[in-house]
Amino acid sequence: MEQNDTTTIEMSAMEIHKVAPPPHKTTLQKLKTRLKETFFPDDPLRQFKGQPLKKKLILGAQYVFPILEWGPNYSFKLLKSDIVSGLTIASLAIPQGISYAKLANLPPIVGLYSSFVPPLVYAVLGSSRDLAVGPVSIASLVLGSMLREVVSPTKDPILFLQLAFSSTFFAGLFQASLGFLRLGFIIDFLSKATLIGFMAGAAIIVSLQQLKSLLGITNFTKQMGIIPVLSSVFHRTNEWSWQTILMGVCFLVFLLFTRHISIRKPKLFWISAGAPLLSVIISTLLVFALKAQKHGISVIGELQKGLNPVSWNMLHFHGRYLGLIIKTGIVTGILSLTEGIAVGRTFAALKNYQVDGNKEMIAIGLMNIVGSSTSCYVTTGAFSRSAVNHNAGSKTAVSNIVMAVTIMVTLLFLMPLFQYTPNVILGAIIVTAVIGLIDISAAYQIWKIDKFDFVVLLCAFFGVIFISVQDGLAIAVGISIFKVLLQITRPKTVMLGNIPGTRIYRNLDHYKEALSVPGFLILSIEAPINFANTTYLKERISRWMEEYESGETKKQSELKYVVLDLSAVSAIDTSGISLFKDLSMVLEKKSLELVLVNPIGEVLEKLQRADDTKDMMGTDCLFLTVGEAVASVSSTIKYQIPAHV
Amino acid sequence: MEQNDTTTIEMSAMEIHKVAPPPHKTTLQKLKTRLKETFFPDDPLRQFKGQPLKKKLILGAQYVFPILEWGPNYSFKLLKSDIVSGLTIASLAIPQGISYAKLANLPPIVGLYSSFVPPLVYAVLGSSRDLAVGPVSIASLVLGSMLREVVSPTKDPILFLQLAFSSTFFAGLFQASLGFLRLGFIIDFLSKATLIGFMAGAAIIVSLQQLKSLLGITNFTKQMGIIPVLSSVFHRTNEWSWQTILMGVCFLVFLLFTRHISIRKPKLFWISAGAPLLSVIISTLLVFALKAQKHGISVIGELQKGLNPVSWNMLHFHGRYLGLIIKTGIVTGILSLTEGIAVGRTFAALKNYQVDGNKEMIAIGLMNIVGSSTSCYVTTGAFSRSAVNHNAGSKTAVSNIVMAVTIMVTLLFLMPLFQYTPNVILGAIIVTAVIGLIDISAAYQIWKIDKFDFVVLLCAFFGVIFISVQDGLAIAVGISIFKVLLQITRPKTVMLGNIPGTRIYRNLDHYKEALSVPGFLILSIEAPINFANTTYLKERISRWMEEYESGETKKQSELKYVVLDLSAVSAIDTSGISLFKDLSMVLEKKSLELVLVNPIGEVLEKLQRADDTKDMMGTDCLFLTVGEAVASVSSTIKYQIPAHV
Repeated sequence: MEQNDTTTIEMSAMEIHKVAPPPHKTTLQKLKTRLKETFFPDDPLRQFKGQPLKKKLILGAQYVFPILEWGPNYSFKLLKSDIVSGLTIASLAIPQGISYAKLANLPPIVGLYSSFVPPLVYAVLGSSRDLAVGPVSIASLVLGSMLREVVSPTKDPILFLQLAFSSTFFAGLFQASLGFLRLGFIIDFLSKATLIGFMAGAAIIVSLQQLKSLLGITNFTKQMGIIPVLSSVFHRTNEWSWQTILMGVCFLVFLLFTRHISIRKPKLFWISAGAPLLSVIISTLLVFALKAQKHGISVIGELQKGLNPVSWNMLHFHGRYLGLIIKTGIVTGILSLTEGIAVGRTFAALKNYQVDGNKEMIAIGLMNIVGSSTSCYVTTGAFSRSAVNHNAGSKTAVSNIVMAVTIMVTLLFLMPLFQYTPNVILGAIIVTAVIGLIDISAAYQIWKIDKFDFVVLLCAFFGVIFISVQDGLAIAVGISIFKVLLQITRPKTVMLGNIPGTRIYRNLDHYKEALSVPGFLILSIEAPINFANTTYLKERISRWMEEYESGETKKQSELKYVVLDLSAVSAIDTSGISLFKDLSMVLEKKSLELVLVNPIGEVLEKLQRADDTKDMMGTDCLFLTVGEAVASVSSTIKYQIPAHV
Repeated sequence: MEQNDTTTIEMSAMEIHKVAPPPHKTTLQKLKTRLKETFFPDDPLRQFKGQPLKKKLILGAQYVFPILEWGPNYSFKLLKSDIVSGLTIASLAIPQGISYAKLANLPPIVGLYSSFVPPLVYAVLGSSRDLAVGPVSIASLVLGSMLREVVSPTKDPILFLQLAFSSTFFAGLFQASLGFLRLGFIIDFLSKATLIGFMAGAAIIVSLQQLKSLLGITNFTKQMGIIPVLSSVFHRTNEWSWQTILMGVCFLVFLLFTRHISIRKPKLFWISAGAPLLSVIISTLLVFALKAQKHGISVIGELQKGLNPVSWNMLHFHGRYLGLIIKTGIVTGILSLTEGIAVGRTFAALKNYQVDGNKEMIAIGLMNIVGSSTSCYVTTGAFSRSAVNHNAGSKTAVSNIVMAVTIMVTLLFLMPLFQYTPNVILGAIIVTAVIGLIDISAAYQIWKIDKFDFVVLLCAFFGVIFISVQDGLAIAVGISIFKVLLQITRPKTVMLGNIPGTRIYRNLDHYKEALSVPGFLILSIEAPINFANTTYLKERISRWMEEYESGETKKQSELKYVVLDLSAVSAIDTSGISLFKDLSMVLEKKSLELVLVNPIGEVLEKLQRADDTKDMMGTDCLFLTVGEAVASVSSTIKYQIPAHV
């Protein structure tokens, strides 16, 4: 660095730097840049640039089917790791699949179907090496509760199943479309605070639902809210079954204990991974041995054998339920996508490889579309299962294939074994799984950093608990967006002062050593200027001026110049342009001068193009830095005063 | 200005300025400041500060009833001006009132009722001196078309009238609430582009509707869209009445000609102001003399005499139409408020006095609430009539009282005279009035300045013409908000370079003379960092780094530092904080260092409060300006290299 040279030049140069207009670009070029930045910020095609055609084709095929990328280099060593991790997640996937299907009010076997086909599809299309695919608790809960509001799963099970598959189809279609249309940023609107509040609320709702099986209540409420569920629990104490409660408490304690061990020592992950299957086996044996199903312990009952039947003939594309199906599809689609993408990104960051969000959306979407025609409901990459997969040493998506094959064997041969599995165990497994969704330390961090975000979190949490899962989510998203709009509507405008001994100007409220410059009102506007804030800015700037004129600074020197630092104005629209026109009118009436500092290219161009603000763009009222503006303008005062005298 | 001193200090000082934490404020203080800036940016109570109690009471009464402010100083001279302007606007208000009521599918006399009570209320409560109050075309059109979609005004006129009054009540309630709750910024979401497009579309829709009376068609379509209207016109050529067309064309030419004269010579405003009444008188006499009502020219027919009957017993507060009423009330409320506030502000700026937006909303809202109980429908300050009022030399709201008294006399004694007024004249008056809403030169300015705004304009325009008035408006508002959200989701991030000979750093794309600094990637983020853009920013910054490493700059020097200029980051939330955590993880893996420049108070505080980003706040990676950051950091490189060698 030629530090000394630079300083020397700066010393000698009292020169003022011109604000140059940006290099000319046509509207089409600008549109192209804008579209590229909006939809292709990751520039996905850059690897294709300058490659020969054959290479391009290979790269293209690898882009669509990531399996072609890592497949050819697949080795026996990798396979060994993948088999271990695949078997581990299968042992978790079987009990979870059955449990989550029940959470969605679907037949238990659908949960196993959903753990068989989608992982195979994902292994071919997906780009994450750690994602373990299958049904997840949140999406199951939301799917079940949204459909149950309209159709009863007990009275009309076939229709309910049809609606579930159709919703899955639309969820997949929506997910794949987001990826194809590169609109993946839509899932970003679920902020971290929203998700933490939502998941905690959902975990509580899910756990409360499990009181049905944990207490052995037969006539349970159909509603999801905390109040009807608790009143249902305490009004039906006569239905509580002590055998069920005993069994449930024992296994719940066992499962929570194994979970605790694995959290403490991540190397012992296999303890919590194997515990659910072990619980299922032990409890099934217990029931079978004690004939406990005759003593008030309800069991799953007979299950059919065999692989996934086709279900494309069950999809609804019209009819009176179409609105419900599409809505359910979109909500579950967004939720499962958010989980899948977040999980993929987390483990990619840990192992330092890239996951392409839009490509993942297409993979997850296609997986659900295929799933909906093969008796599967909404699936995605599950956080808990992927963590086990990662800990168990999975190397590639082959672990998903191993898991799917294990599930296939189960579906073909082992289904009758589950006949005596008690429902209470499934409840305990679900509670253990969702309890991890309540993240109190993250909530505390949010409270510490940003109180408003914490309010959003609380809204999501209480909305889910007291109103409904989807409304709670909608309220939290609405508040988050409202906050962003409010920031735009009421942009920060701060008064700047000079930091003594420099040409640096900073916020007077923040830097106490900064001094305001007599005769100058120096304001920095810190947001795009547009229709939503033009009126506010005009009134606010007028008030700054009035305050100057009625305040103490007045005594030192009359207000002569209003300097607007536009460095942080990242965009402007036609309403924003009219602000400058109106301001210059107001200032003219008060014989003040308006000085603009450092407008960015777009703002500069638009101000020049508008007829009313063209004149403001002269060199005497447009500067590159506040320091230069103040120096230059006040030197003209100096020269003027003697001339007048 | 001690320019020389400053420069001397700057010369000698290679010192680095500390980024100070902002002065401590409690959460409650911050909340108070934030709420004040959001809801009371105009600080309406500042005039009360430090006044004795008696003065405070007087100021308070004047605040609520502006008439107490100007009333005591009212003079005979002012009265003379106000009588002239009052009579002038009355001559315009009578024919327009009758015409706009027909536009809203209401009995003509309701238009006159609405020009009697609301101006009196406004005269007491309103703070604008130029606003001429009464029914307006846009609100009339929207009210009529929204209600007609559900209830037929011909088959069920009483119910229709009840719904119109009820909608007026809710419009007023909504307007007054916006003012009371200081949520006036909601009307800012109707951007200039939206309004220009919407009004042009509405003007065309309204004009097309007038073809019914201008052509004398009896069986006209009930729809508003351009296609059904035109097909109705051309399928019913047999109903065209040449007498009506002849009369319509003559008076339309006359009215448009007088309008043209007044636009050319604003001093002759009274020509266009008086022309409608003159047309009504002449045409009525013509019909009466020629008995033209028997030759195919339809006339208004008999009208009742007398002042406004009470109508509070006609208001619906429940029942099946409540949703429709509230929706209509809100839409017409927003539209009429937008017009009223805009008109008030325009003339206040011309005469250099202040109009308090929130106070005006309360005034307009109360005026509509009172109106709804006295047989009036939605009213506001009309642009054309206020312009006439202003040109005719009105001094205070007394001109509204004079107008109201004139209307009262008309209602009491002159109603029978309108019996023979032909409907075709009313059509011609409406067309002449709304043609001024099409503002092609403003549309051209928008096209020139901002192409996206022009798209919004077109959406509003075509939406209104082809879909419906309220949907067109909703689409345009939706797109405007979507654009704002998109700006947040894809914030500008620009690479900065050094302007040779200075310590100024500016956008490399804009300032071609700026040079990038080898070893440094200097990025400026120009938006609040929040949930909606965290993922994007992370990916985009990673791509900047990759591009640096694969680009030409690499040859000069390895990338060592990533400098983020946060001057323009006006806010941050918890998701935004995690960006810095993730970035520092990524950078650590690449052995790069992250340097932050000039975070504003809020951002600085939150980064310090979060556990993960606390360490980033050390003095060696936090600087006040980019120049100081580069200078300081590169000087440490200098010293390090010899040590390694």
